[in-house]
Amino acid sequence: MLMAVWLNGSPINGLPTGDRGFAYGDGHFTTLPVRDGSPVLLSYHWQRLLAACQAFGIPVNRFPDWQRDFLRFAAAYPNATAKIVITRGRGGRGYLPDETAEPHCYFMAWPVTAHSRDHQHGIDSGVLKGVLGLNPLTAGHKHLNRLEQVMLRRELAETPFPEAVVCDLNGDVTEGVFSNLFLVKDQLLYTPPLTSAGVAGVMRAFLMDYLHSLQHTVRVLTLRVEHLEQADELFFCNSLYGIWPVRRFNGQPMPANPVTQRLQFHLQNARITA
Amino acid sequence: MLMAVWLNGSPINGLPTGDRGFAYGDGHFTTLPVRDGSPVLLSYHWQRLLAACQAFGIPVNRFPDWQRDFLRFAAAYPNATAKIVITRGRGGRGYLPDETAEPHCYFMAWPVTAHSRDHQHGIDSGVLKGVLGLNPLTAGHKHLNRLEQVMLRRELAETPFPEAVVCDLNGDVTEGVFSNLFLVKDQLLYTPPLTSAGVAGVMRAFLMDYLHSLQHTVRVLTLRVEHLEQADELFFCNSLYGIWPVRRFNGQPMPANPVTQRLQFHLQNARITA
Repeated sequence: MLMAVWLNGSPINGLPTGDRGFAYGDGHFTTLPVRDGSPVLLSYHWQRLLAACQAFGIPVNRFPDWQRDFLRFAAAYPNATAKIVITRGRGGRGYLPDETAEPHCYFMAWPVTAHSRDHQHGIDSGVLKGVLGLNPLTAGHKHLNRLEQVMLRRELAETPFPEAVVCDLNGDVTEGVFSNLFLVKDQLLYTPPLTSAGVAGVMRAFLMDYLHSLQHTVRVLTLRVEHLEQADELFFCNSLYGIWPVRRFNGQPMPANPVTQRLQFHLQNARITA
Repeated sequence: MLMAVWLNGSPINGLPTGDRGFAYGDGHFTTLPVRDGSPVLLSYHWQRLLAACQAFGIPVNRFPDWQRDFLRFAAAYPNATAKIVITRGRGGRGYLPDETAEPHCYFMAWPVTAHSRDHQHGIDSGVLKGVLGLNPLTAGHKHLNRLEQVMLRRELAETPFPEAVVCDLNGDVTEGVFSNLFLVKDQLLYTPPLTSAGVAGVMRAFLMDYLHSLQHTVRVLTLRVEHLEQADELFFCNSLYGIWPVRRFNGQPMPANPVTQRLQFHLQNARITA
């Protein structure tokens, strides 16, 4: 199913056994669609990868090489779901990194798996029982420490919902299991801060920039489940499927969703391959 | 430096590219010394691996095979630092596990790297600024999500301490960066609970069992840094180095440490290869 894996620009058949990404989750990643050879929102993805390297102290001097190599990779796999994984590279046994080690940049390609088109028209959703921990040292970044998401994804599979809201240990709304979350109330948009838990998604960043460019206000605000229940509109978003409006939340139907629909319309028509 | 890697009983040269341990840290591990062909405290290590599999929903039906295979591995690498890593195995792209996938059990062997013998006589220690997050879903287990420990280990390298105390987000004492922590006060022993953060080490479990067998009381109690400063004795422990007494803490000399010394004496003389 995995079509190809490249490491620092060259195809490989097995991961290096000493990679710290495997040993300790000592790295981070991003996932993006490649359509007709064009990686979608690629500059946003590299920006996020750069920020995570800086946060975790992973050297970034090879970035220009990786960026050039990825264009070759996208040309070789022009219609795929691609993943870029950056790890601290090889390291001894023990948490202390070898600061002279070369980071590893992996590219992976999978066949495109279509999400249900129906979800674009709206999904039923609710709130999971499992909660995210609080990790201010690492929150916001899409690091390789995703065991909580795996456990929450298993819980989601036991519900009728394609995606659901996850709160943190304080009971504050954080995100979906594999999505970010926006709320519309009185024409204003809100999305939770991701400073203690959660992943700041590329689609979230793109939508915030787009809304700002239209002079729309997006407030990053701590939200509780009650706020979601009183919202005019709710939607999930991520880089692969775009936007899923919520049409029923916690068993109650949501009103019409004109703001979400306008965003979906823009997203389908925008040239977002920059 | 890594001498050998086996996967489910057979040597490999590269890790499977689709392993969920690499993708999401979807697995857990343990590290143990093998001395003259005998893995130290092996039954404790398998017990911890079993508990982690059960907590994360990783199938355990192959455990008897893995246990038999590991004895062959220990015979092949009779003097080594060994690591056993269990992951959920191969999986598609996305957090949802393929529940039919076979788990992967890896054995790795490194040459023994001697810790400074001097540390057995006592180390200087203090408290790191960085704190552990709160993750009740995963706390206590030695899972592959160790990015916080990597960051704390880098902070430790900037201090003069061989090991240091780490608190959690609430300011409660949790453990060392790569050790558990015990405190002695008025002949009683205390160690922090590890229900929100930290790793319940095999040496901690062994010492607790041993102390109980001597009718010694060990209390699992929430501790603050002030408690450590007022302790009669403090020591760190882990499976590889045993016990390191703290002789100076936060700049203040600690009193004599008869309880810690008795434990060290026992540990050196015990047949702890069961």
